[in-house]
Amino acid sequence: MKILWVFAHPDRRSLGGSLMTEGLRTLESLGHEHRTSDLYGMGWKAVVDADDFTDDFGGPPRDRRLFVGSEQERAYRERKLSEDVRREQEKIDWADTLVFQFPLWWFGPPAILKGWFDRVLVQGFGFGVKGPEGRTLRYGDGGLAGKRALVVTSVGARESGFGPRGIHGQLDQVLFPLLHGTFWYTGMAALPPFVVYGADRLTDAGYAHSAGRLRQRLRALPGTDPLPFHEENGGAYDEDLVLRPELAPGLSGLGVHS
Amino acid sequence: MKILWVFAHPDRRSLGGSLMTEGLRTLESLGHEHRTSDLYGMGWKAVVDADDFTDDFGGPPRDRRLFVGSEQERAYRERKLSEDVRREQEKIDWADTLVFQFPLWWFGPPAILKGWFDRVLVQGFGFGVKGPEGRTLRYGDGGLAGKRALVVTSVGARESGFGPRGIHGQLDQVLFPLLHGTFWYTGMAALPPFVVYGADRLTDAGYAHSAGRLRQRLRALPGTDPLPFHEENGGAYDEDLVLRPELAPGLSGLGVHS
Repeated sequence: MKILWVFAHPDRRSLGGSLMTEGLRTLESLGHEHRTSDLYGMGWKAVVDADDFTDDFGGPPRDRRLFVGSEQERAYRERKLSEDVRREQEKIDWADTLVFQFPLWWFGPPAILKGWFDRVLVQGFGFGVKGPEGRTLRYGDGGLAGKRALVVTSVGARESGFGPRGIHGQLDQVLFPLLHGTFWYTGMAALPPFVVYGADRLTDAGYAHSAGRLRQRLRALPGTDPLPFHEENGGAYDEDLVLRPELAPGLSGLGVHS
Repeated sequence: MKILWVFAHPDRRSLGGSLMTEGLRTLESLGHEHRTSDLYGMGWKAVVDADDFTDDFGGPPRDRRLFVGSEQERAYRERKLSEDVRREQEKIDWADTLVFQFPLWWFGPPAILKGWFDRVLVQGFGFGVKGPEGRTLRYGDGGLAGKRALVVTSVGARESGFGPRGIHGQLDQVLFPLLHGTFWYTGMAALPPFVVYGADRLTDAGYAHSAGRLRQRLRALPGTDPLPFHEENGGAYDEDLVLRPELAPGLSGLGVHS
């Protein structure tokens, strides 16, 4: 495998940093290639703004209105996206597997990682690609089709709170914007997330156990089945993009999409 | 009402910017007070890092490991959080209603707004406050209890795709990390989101219609019922924070929490 490991924690000496070191070592020992994007270490710019564009939007006077989506697409096609964004896109092109590792903050990725998605997965690259019949390729197909993506995250809370009826919300549904709305949307198969619970109170033995689980997970990665989301163009949805009534009949909510 | 309006779009001339102007004018005409946080306009720093702390973590040498959560709590109690963070906390203290306006990017807030939550709603202020019996106050109670929060967002997609069985996911569940995991978690009542669909293809008439809907929504705000999430300490959850079996019996997923 060719793995791009994206890491989003301000301190490499954190629990997450240790797990990443462990994870990369495991991948090496298995003969896989890897590249990393340590977002804090790189000083990654988190926010989409005019500086993302090397031409008109690169400096004042900024008298044109910034239509973010269409401007990103134009700049991508004309190779006018800023160097840092293009470098990440090249890494994605190279990789067949993406790992996103972060502490769960406010039930989602830290801003620096959210900004990586906002800035890198632009229209024309990550999505908005047309298929043979002029169909927009999304959800199971698209710019990043054929790749697989894994979330590695740590949360302070106990596991029960993230269960099917846990107060924090069933974890794969809390992460739906990422697993379905980002990975699957761009064509990437979403692997079941790897989660360390109770991360704030982890003992040495608890860490060793988590590290062992991660190693095992990475070893099994090539054969791991992704989450079985429905494809947009596979017949599951009607023209209004509503799930056909014969699938998950009578049900609603995020759970119906797999 | 005293409204804090947090705005997260890089261009004030955007659809969102126009709607904010419209919204603030409406609030004024109704005699409400408002303050704003135009995050891009303020040059808001999106990422949590050592510069959030005015003491040891303010500059090199940085030889202490950064435990984000506990360090934020300590710095909050000792008034050692950076000035920009404290200013936002003061605005929140002042307000009884918070409006968060943003374009939906990757099914969530833009990084600059995610970073506002990451940096401002720190432990001891937004959550981690103890009640009379030593109970942690969360989900319907906590640091921001008594306040109400409204999402105002725009999405490119059509409304049907965000319906109960729409491919993008039922909108209030896609926004669960924000509505339930952030607003409700800190004690704020989450109002039903205000959404402009098809934002990329909005005609002048469509804009006028949306602006009218927003004005109406803001006029009705004082009497609008929030989303009926269960309280953590109201008896709905057991000791493991799992919803008691008599509520939403046999069901699971995010929908069971209201």
